[in-house]
Amino acid sequence: MMVSMQLAILGTGAVGPALGKAFSGVGHDVVIGTRDPEQTKQREQWAGADLPLAAYEDLDAEVFINATNGAGALPALQAVGDALNGKVVIDTSNPLDFSRGFPPSLFISNTDSLAEHLQRELPAARLVKMFNTTANEVMVNPRGLPDDSTIFVAGNDPDARQTATSLAADLGWTDVFDLGDLTAARGLEMYLPLWVRLFSLIGRPNFNIKVVR
Amino acid sequence: MMVSMQLAILGTGAVGPALGKAFSGVGHDVVIGTRDPEQTKQREQWAGADLPLAAYEDLDAEVFINATNGAGALPALQAVGDALNGKVVIDTSNPLDFSRGFPPSLFISNTDSLAEHLQRELPAARLVKMFNTTANEVMVNPRGLPDDSTIFVAGNDPDARQTATSLAADLGWTDVFDLGDLTAARGLEMYLPLWVRLFSLIGRPNFNIKVVR
Repeated sequence: MMVSMQLAILGTGAVGPALGKAFSGVGHDVVIGTRDPEQTKQREQWAGADLPLAAYEDLDAEVFINATNGAGALPALQAVGDALNGKVVIDTSNPLDFSRGFPPSLFISNTDSLAEHLQRELPAARLVKMFNTTANEVMVNPRGLPDDSTIFVAGNDPDARQTATSLAADLGWTDVFDLGDLTAARGLEMYLPLWVRLFSLIGRPNFNIKVVR
Repeated sequence: MMVSMQLAILGTGAVGPALGKAFSGVGHDVVIGTRDPEQTKQREQWAGADLPLAAYEDLDAEVFINATNGAGALPALQAVGDALNGKVVIDTSNPLDFSRGFPPSLFISNTDSLAEHLQRELPAARLVKMFNTTANEVMVNPRGLPDDSTIFVAGNDPDARQTATSLAADLGWTDVFDLGDLTAARGLEMYLPLWVRLFSLIGRPNFNIKVVR
């Protein structure tokens, strides 16, 4: 039985509204966070039109999901502030650096990760890395691919990883691979250059990897 | 119909003899390269006992396969010397740095890769990155996994990529994903931290990823 949860999703790009609609569609109570709700509403193609909007500093929820881009992750979460304390914070973002053009490099990697950086800056939050390894089309519709595939979860708090795993299952994920502590986010973020190359060659975002074992 | 080729495989660790036996078993003409053949033969458990050994500087072949560790790749290939000119050189190694303990980091990554570094140092060779994303147990027996999985090939010379693809097919690979030029080696090498974490958790080397698309 699904337990309905209050979810606050940060970010009004492609990922936030996609996750918001999907989680709302399976019965969760969703609000989308943005810097300036009035400005977001005035966008011609505001993709989250049916979802409630709130300013970052007005958000409260049982679970927060960061769906900004990598550079925007820390400012958005810092704007939420103390409401994050003790809460599960799922980070879906990637530290992509397009300043040297395409393909992007990573602005943090190898001996550190964006997720670990966020956890250090927000020590009272329970950071979980999830959903950064697929496009939003796959996040919200894993069964749309021709075979089962794998989504990964990493974080220092086992209960937080379990909450994230349950949320993924609500969207249809059957293979949620628990990678343990947040240092595993290095590998998840360093997978992005391969993902970007695959995306360029496959020519569409609806693909993913499956761990065959 | 398989075309028998002369293959020189550099390295006498786990990977070299495994690839040597497998390629020899399907009809290729294999020699294993090592720094000092007499010293290698005296090892109690020389795993490549049935394969001919030669010193790096005495190797010649149609295709070279580097199966040393990452730090040993350039010295081994430089020891082979001019015999590499114009030849396909498949690099299976990874730039793993264990100097800070486990998990390893990468000693080259993000905006460069070991494979690109090797290509720059050996401009007359036709470098191909392949086989760095699986353990040798999987390289030589992809059908041993419970499902098809994917092996990747990257390199600046399309004919060299095709040669590598044919060699992988000889070992039973049915999904050889051509990633194009050698900058794709960044993504292939940056996949290693995720592979290492998966290996730790799965507890055995016989797993791989499949690109579901």
